[in-house]
Amino acid sequence: MVATKTEDKSLSTVTLLQDLPAETRARIAGRCRWRRFGPGQVIIEPESVDRDVFFIASGRVRVVNFGPQGREVSYCDIEAGGSFGELAAIDGGPRSAQVQALDNVLAAALDARTFRQLVEEEPRFAMAVMTRLAGLVRASSTRILDISTLGAHNRVHAELLRLARLGEREDGTARIEPIPQQAELAARVSTVRETVARVMSDLSKRGILQRDKSVLVITDIERLEDLVDSVHDG
Amino acid sequence: MVATKTEDKSLSTVTLLQDLPAETRARIAGRCRWRRFGPGQVIIEPESVDRDVFFIASGRVRVVNFGPQGREVSYCDIEAGGSFGELAAIDGGPRSAQVQALDNVLAAALDARTFRQLVEEEPRFAMAVMTRLAGLVRASSTRILDISTLGAHNRVHAELLRLARLGEREDGTARIEPIPQQAELAARVSTVRETVARVMSDLSKRGILQRDKSVLVITDIERLEDLVDSVHDG
Repeated sequence: MVATKTEDKSLSTVTLLQDLPAETRARIAGRCRWRRFGPGQVIIEPESVDRDVFFIASGRVRVVNFGPQGREVSYCDIEAGGSFGELAAIDGGPRSAQVQALDNVLAAALDARTFRQLVEEEPRFAMAVMTRLAGLVRASSTRILDISTLGAHNRVHAELLRLARLGEREDGTARIEPIPQQAELAARVSTVRETVARVMSDLSKRGILQRDKSVLVITDIERLEDLVDSVHDG
Repeated sequence: MVATKTEDKSLSTVTLLQDLPAETRARIAGRCRWRRFGPGQVIIEPESVDRDVFFIASGRVRVVNFGPQGREVSYCDIEAGGSFGELAAIDGGPRSAQVQALDNVLAAALDARTFRQLVEEEPRFAMAVMTRLAGLVRASSTRILDISTLGAHNRVHAELLRLARLGEREDGTARIEPIPQQAELAARVSTVRETVARVMSDLSKRGILQRDKSVLVITDIERLEDLVDSVHDG
């Protein structure tokens, strides 16, 4: 691989290690095993007993799980600078979800023992891990509330609004690209693909959403916001 | 209050402080403000900006949230020895849920600054907090998967099975007491009271469940298990 030479293996972009002195980060980098994964490759299997923590240097992963009939539930995507696998390293339990590479991923794997040692020796690291876990609890609580009290249509609207805000323009429109797959949106808001298709077709008819080649254009963010705000109990 | 004299204010039963030396626990107890709450009293308001962490010396609390139309979603009940309020103390964010006293509660409130200082000075405390947060993430992920992939009937069966196992007897029956309120069960598994009523009446007709004064008797745990295992995607 030609790219290897210029790859950054300093872990300087890893959020969990951000507050540590550069020397400490270098020492940690030295303890990691560097691993590569291709698109679609499974990095962590649910229920497996390995306990490494992974820091993503480049690429993106998706954390998912599967219902008894195989329906996919997507928890979150994690980008370069992010980390995953902390739960098993902390409590020694089995893996709680599946983690799959979305594209070419370069990640540093740290064994659980060194991870725990680091927590003990570096209070700033302990605090960073705690802050990340607190964020996960907050996000999960919000999702539980949303699935429990909002209708599926409303959850699709809310997810589109979240994506729209990432590509918002000054004229009140937004560009979402690449166009997310309907099955992917469905897994993210706990519904079925057919519901996402129905909501998107309805938004097209209302003139709020347009497909433009490989871009999804939200023509009027404010109207989408109004839809999200007009909630009903599910 | 006559009981005050014999109340244990040593924090010795608090899970988060279990691994600390008794002197450290005593020092922490000295930094807490002791507070009392009556049944139904709200201890933490969602979105509020106080950041204390609470250790429960006696009594029970419930962590809940409310949907846009007021529908209650129950996250968990926490008993004596448990703690709550950690998220805001860790990340400085607003309160993510409401915490209400279920009965007479005596709790020790520790301010966020002292809590964070303790995390920095006591690695065993940091590890205990992390383990608790990891447990919350695991429980939330399971619940998200359940709500997303199981039908409401199945979730009620699973919750009754969970309660049954707490009062299981050698002859394959179980006693659940006091009888949980239908609205309470509904809030715990993200459905409406009417669904819980329907499932319980169905279980009675099948002879799996009986009311006996103030006790709910599961006459055949194995058949209830079979029902839980015969899952369908919701």
